[in-house]
Amino acid sequence: MTAFLDRCRAIAGAEFVLDRPADMAPFLRDWRGRFTGAARAVLRPGSVDEVARLVRLCADERVPIVPQGGNTGLVLGSVPDASGTAVVLSVARLNRVRALDPVNRTVTVDAGVILQHVQEAAAAAGCLFPLSLAAEGSCTIGGNLASNAGGTGVLRYGNARELCLGLEVVTPQGELWSGLRGLRKDNTGYDLRDLYIGAEGTLGIITGAVMKLYPAPKASITALAALPSPAHALRLLSLVQDRAGASLTGFELMSAYCLALVAKHFPQLPRPFGSVHPQYALLEISSSESETHAVELLEGAIGAALEADIVLDAVVATSVAHSRGLWQLREHIPLAQAADGKNIKHDISLPVSMVADFIAGTEPLLRQAFPGCRLVCFGHLGDGNLHFNVAPPPGIDNESFLVNQEKVNRVVHDAVVACGGSISAEHGIGALKRDELARYKSPVELNLMRAIKAALDPLNIMNPGKIL
Amino acid sequence: MTAFLDRCRAIAGAEFVLDRPADMAPFLRDWRGRFTGAARAVLRPGSVDEVARLVRLCADERVPIVPQGGNTGLVLGSVPDASGTAVVLSVARLNRVRALDPVNRTVTVDAGVILQHVQEAAAAAGCLFPLSLAAEGSCTIGGNLASNAGGTGVLRYGNARELCLGLEVVTPQGELWSGLRGLRKDNTGYDLRDLYIGAEGTLGIITGAVMKLYPAPKASITALAALPSPAHALRLLSLVQDRAGASLTGFELMSAYCLALVAKHFPQLPRPFGSVHPQYALLEISSSESETHAVELLEGAIGAALEADIVLDAVVATSVAHSRGLWQLREHIPLAQAADGKNIKHDISLPVSMVADFIAGTEPLLRQAFPGCRLVCFGHLGDGNLHFNVAPPPGIDNESFLVNQEKVNRVVHDAVVACGGSISAEHGIGALKRDELARYKSPVELNLMRAIKAALDPLNIMNPGKIL
Repeated sequence: MTAFLDRCRAIAGAEFVLDRPADMAPFLRDWRGRFTGAARAVLRPGSVDEVARLVRLCADERVPIVPQGGNTGLVLGSVPDASGTAVVLSVARLNRVRALDPVNRTVTVDAGVILQHVQEAAAAAGCLFPLSLAAEGSCTIGGNLASNAGGTGVLRYGNARELCLGLEVVTPQGELWSGLRGLRKDNTGYDLRDLYIGAEGTLGIITGAVMKLYPAPKASITALAALPSPAHALRLLSLVQDRAGASLTGFELMSAYCLALVAKHFPQLPRPFGSVHPQYALLEISSSESETHAVELLEGAIGAALEADIVLDAVVATSVAHSRGLWQLREHIPLAQAADGKNIKHDISLPVSMVADFIAGTEPLLRQAFPGCRLVCFGHLGDGNLHFNVAPPPGIDNESFLVNQEKVNRVVHDAVVACGGSISAEHGIGALKRDELARYKSPVELNLMRAIKAALDPLNIMNPGKIL
Repeated sequence: MTAFLDRCRAIAGAEFVLDRPADMAPFLRDWRGRFTGAARAVLRPGSVDEVARLVRLCADERVPIVPQGGNTGLVLGSVPDASGTAVVLSVARLNRVRALDPVNRTVTVDAGVILQHVQEAAAAAGCLFPLSLAAEGSCTIGGNLASNAGGTGVLRYGNARELCLGLEVVTPQGELWSGLRGLRKDNTGYDLRDLYIGAEGTLGIITGAVMKLYPAPKASITALAALPSPAHALRLLSLVQDRAGASLTGFELMSAYCLALVAKHFPQLPRPFGSVHPQYALLEISSSESETHAVELLEGAIGAALEADIVLDAVVATSVAHSRGLWQLREHIPLAQAADGKNIKHDISLPVSMVADFIAGTEPLLRQAFPGCRLVCFGHLGDGNLHFNVAPPPGIDNESFLVNQEKVNRVVHDAVVACGGSISAEHGIGALKRDELARYKSPVELNLMRAIKAALDPLNIMNPGKIL
């Protein structure tokens, strides 16, 4: 053990091999604070070459490796288990923006660059890097790719996967695959890039990436629409997509209960409507032409929806600043929910056309099984992605409700799978949902995944126990 | 052998197991007519279950399988080699549009559906299926996915890969992987879908797919711009992207020599300019709002480019019909080229920012090595994808020039790789470019691909000799 750590120190430098509990603690604790693992050490290499040498050493010694970026994941994918046999390998010190090419519209970054810093580098070059999510101030681009992060820009720009053109990966054998291509078209063999993306560090360690940039829109304008039901929200989505095409850059659904929670815990935020409506949609239109064009496009769409009796009431922002205020309502839902107590979370996706039927079918099942429970249902409707969270009935304390987690999961996930949906839309599997994955995936698919894992990581040292 | 064919007939029906040379001929000849392979038989199953059963039989008997769709590929990926040991398995009879969901904006199709029929099914539902390429009347969606087809819509909508949400695949063991998901977000394990896409039938047989649809634009309007150089074309691309964002749905580059070839062989087509200019760009703007909006956006962009001295002259179409006429100039380049004689073709891609430097650097090398040779250089500039073809000097006959193929490839591909480009942008590798792949890919990447192939097709019966 000591010999192993000494060899790690010889590679990365003594100060970057942590083995004191206090030093390791932040790397072992999961983002939601519900689990703390154990590790032999936390390795913090300062270069891709050091990553490769550390991995070769671990392979020689059969030491399991848990790759880690910002450690903001929600499914225990970036923390070690409790056994203490693994090392955490943090790529946080690989934090250079290597190159930005404004004509190719690409940025080449180290895996440890914070997402917000990628956004800022793009903005400084007059471009947009559209990946955006709650943890953007802490999460890293390597972690975003390993978990194929989603967020609020997926409707227009796709997931992290669709934003990546090239990767650099250290394999479980400690070899370097240099796939840092900045090409829009490249049909030369198997798509290794997309195999590593979303593999949650189980097939190798992403050390660098070439990401797509987009022309920055001239303005993004938001509207909040009040709706009778999720089915009306789907009609609104179709209507706006037909009128605005790719200019529709956001479409979020929020139930009345979600906005009531926000109003309760954040009374300083705007309350756009005088009365309460069953559902709300937050729409964002971005224009490459002008703020005026964005406002006109949005007003035209909302007007048509009002005329067609799809929308009950609506507020269209008249400026970019006003738009930010409306977005805050959506962004404060997770915070309001946390302030209100614990709940049982689901990150699900469905065919967009099934969302209303799913909600209408699943709510009664939950209310029947858990009388009085409250649903915190919101999400990225344009992507079919709901955060479908279940909170205890009034007067029931959190802990006594959380024992129902397995039963609640079963109701929700069974309904999701029956609708052709996914039990993990954007958070991944990690260790948390591994048993759920095994339950719902077909044996053929599980065996294909196992064959790939065994082929690329035959020693099973790369983030073992995650996904499979 | 006879016993094997009898068992095939028992599965697929006697009339769908072809073994007479005349019946097999169209399945054995490559699209460009330069190669004809041999096969034991051509199998034409009529259902996914028949595909699976035939594959299990072939696996039992160790008979290599060449999956085939429309057989329109350009790299010998869908025809057997000359040994006669393989069977061709055509999915052409799997030709149903299984379902179309206008709210989810997806269409689920059998692999053997002709691309144009997918486009038509989408249009009938008021949607756009944006994959478009020269062979669209003959090629199948399964072949498009197996080769990750590109075409003219990639700038806005991506390659076949980006248009696919779910797949159904028969594995080399004859098992069925049902991955026909219509989800925008799904992070549940390894990305098998993208592994099969672009694998050219070497990892399994695609039998069905869920493809993305888009709202149909209200109008698409085209302009033809005359330019001093490819570098000016890049400046024009950036300018229009900044002004039009996702409304820019096409950007094609054509040299003066390309349009001269079209004028020579198709004198009935329009000649938009009175004089000859070094380069031309064909731009297409699509508007989700109106034809007027598209024309105004395009006129504004071209006006700005003229003012900035980027563009020498330009014609902006004033209607959708006028736009089609300009597109015909671009579409007739391959036909004019073929009418003019044979040439040595390259389907290359580069970082967009490197295209002008690549052309400026490589043309002199070719002119020096092959005095008098003529370059037919055109392509999808917005994707960095050039068809960089080399025709014989005047007076030199085709055959005596074609012996230089290997030397010409070396000049072009060495230059491509030095610029960070790809030797196959949208056509794939097949058998034709296998040696080129082996030359230019790193040993690490080749070994990763071989490991995946061995894991998923350990008997090496699925399209052996292609890619690897």
